[in-house]
Amino acid sequence: MTNVPVRIDDPADPRIAGFVSIKEKDLTGRHGRFIAEGTVVLRMLAAAHRAGRGVAAEAILLLENRVSGLSDILAEFPADIPVYVADALVFDAIAGFNMHRGVMALGRRDQAPRMDVLVGGLPVKSLVLAACGISNHDNMGSMFRNAAAFGADAVLMDETSCDPMYRKAIRVSVGSVLTVPFAREGSVAALVSKLQAEGFSIWGLSPRGQTDLRDIAPSPRTALLVGTEGEGLPQHILSSIRTARVRQRPGLDSLNVATATGIALHQVAMINGFI
Amino acid sequence: MTNVPVRIDDPADPRIAGFVSIKEKDLTGRHGRFIAEGTVVLRMLAAAHRAGRGVAAEAILLLENRVSGLSDILAEFPADIPVYVADALVFDAIAGFNMHRGVMALGRRDQAPRMDVLVGGLPVKSLVLAACGISNHDNMGSMFRNAAAFGADAVLMDETSCDPMYRKAIRVSVGSVLTVPFAREGSVAALVSKLQAEGFSIWGLSPRGQTDLRDIAPSPRTALLVGTEGEGLPQHILSSIRTARVRQRPGLDSLNVATATGIALHQVAMINGFI
Repeated sequence: MTNVPVRIDDPADPRIAGFVSIKEKDLTGRHGRFIAEGTVVLRMLAAAHRAGRGVAAEAILLLENRVSGLSDILAEFPADIPVYVADALVFDAIAGFNMHRGVMALGRRDQAPRMDVLVGGLPVKSLVLAACGISNHDNMGSMFRNAAAFGADAVLMDETSCDPMYRKAIRVSVGSVLTVPFAREGSVAALVSKLQAEGFSIWGLSPRGQTDLRDIAPSPRTALLVGTEGEGLPQHILSSIRTARVRQRPGLDSLNVATATGIALHQVAMINGFI
Repeated sequence: MTNVPVRIDDPADPRIAGFVSIKEKDLTGRHGRFIAEGTVVLRMLAAAHRAGRGVAAEAILLLENRVSGLSDILAEFPADIPVYVADALVFDAIAGFNMHRGVMALGRRDQAPRMDVLVGGLPVKSLVLAACGISNHDNMGSMFRNAAAFGADAVLMDETSCDPMYRKAIRVSVGSVLTVPFAREGSVAALVSKLQAEGFSIWGLSPRGQTDLRDIAPSPRTALLVGTEGEGLPQHILSSIRTARVRQRPGLDSLNVATATGIALHQVAMINGFI
């Protein structure tokens, strides 16, 4: 049973300060806060909140005409999470732009685990997606969605990758960013060393990879490493690990990194019994 | 040898009228014109223009600081295609928004072929991507990129699918929309009938598909049919064709339609020798 929705008539109302000008907040320090947009992500947030593993909902802000249709989802949140409603003018004035969805929640995420701790705690049988230099939030979100769909235990990113807790990445991931464990720190070389030390079979995905994706052998612990769409993985990394390629027509711009990741995760998850 | 770039100082200059307010033009009738954005798509446009199969470049508009870096690509266009340059203020005033890329071309595409003509002219050994109700231009662009990467002979869409010649779809497709033959007309039922009449083995992709994607048998003519992300394929279509599923973790929101299409095309292209 959620609280009765509280009507907001003033975009400057301090109770909804966390939702003000969210596009600007995307770009500056967010202090562990994030914005969940849309009904699918709202439902994932409710589940993550109940699971209590470091993700919590703080407040919900809805366009007034969305409230009745969302009662099922709202009931999944504890009663102490405030639900604010506003008409379209006030809602857009709060958000700072015309937000057709009319569904937002403010969430808080504890400090992400240290890379060492996360990798050290992975199960004996693990599938990991590792990424280097991913700068596009759509690609980041899609990669998390794929990681969830194919049962990856964690997503590990180097420090040059973008923040998956950015609003658009969360939305594109359909909320998977809130459920798939991740860490983002250090260099890709350090990440590879750590995975090697933990006995992972590491495969770098590259259009010039030496092994056809279909010939990757099963392994209890497999990590798939992908790089940026333009440059791919750095040469010093490619020469320190085994590399695989997704077979495709020659002479074309390579696949989108998220699609290539999906194809590769699907294959590796299947041969290792994750799906 | 291209023409010497012509400097534009007035956003109202009639010579660049085709580039004015391109976001509005996205939404209204484009009369066969399209906007190619960015260097990768510009190169694809040059190739499509030279190939002469119904796609032609009409004019190029560049931010002045981009010109010298693009001389290779500009040289791929015939000398009678005008190249206009503008400074950032004028460029953005023309486009109607801040366009960081600073690289645009105006192209023209002949009327797309009729569905009958395109399907009737497909090779004996063919791979087709068929789509129903795809409304998101990013997904549309990604699907064309995948179709090109895995050697599909055509993309066939029902009339409820969005226009792949929309600026963002072309960009996301990295120009594949300009090279992969396509038709968009009629109902999905008519599309399925036409493919069946032409001897295509049709597989509908669905999270509840009866056959594991990996168990699809080779066939000289295969069509993969995908539906909208939310609803999927209509039930009356699913019950008239064979259906396949991409194996994934249960209980999750299904894969993004473009990613699922990429995984399925990769598989079907491989077993049929297209890649």
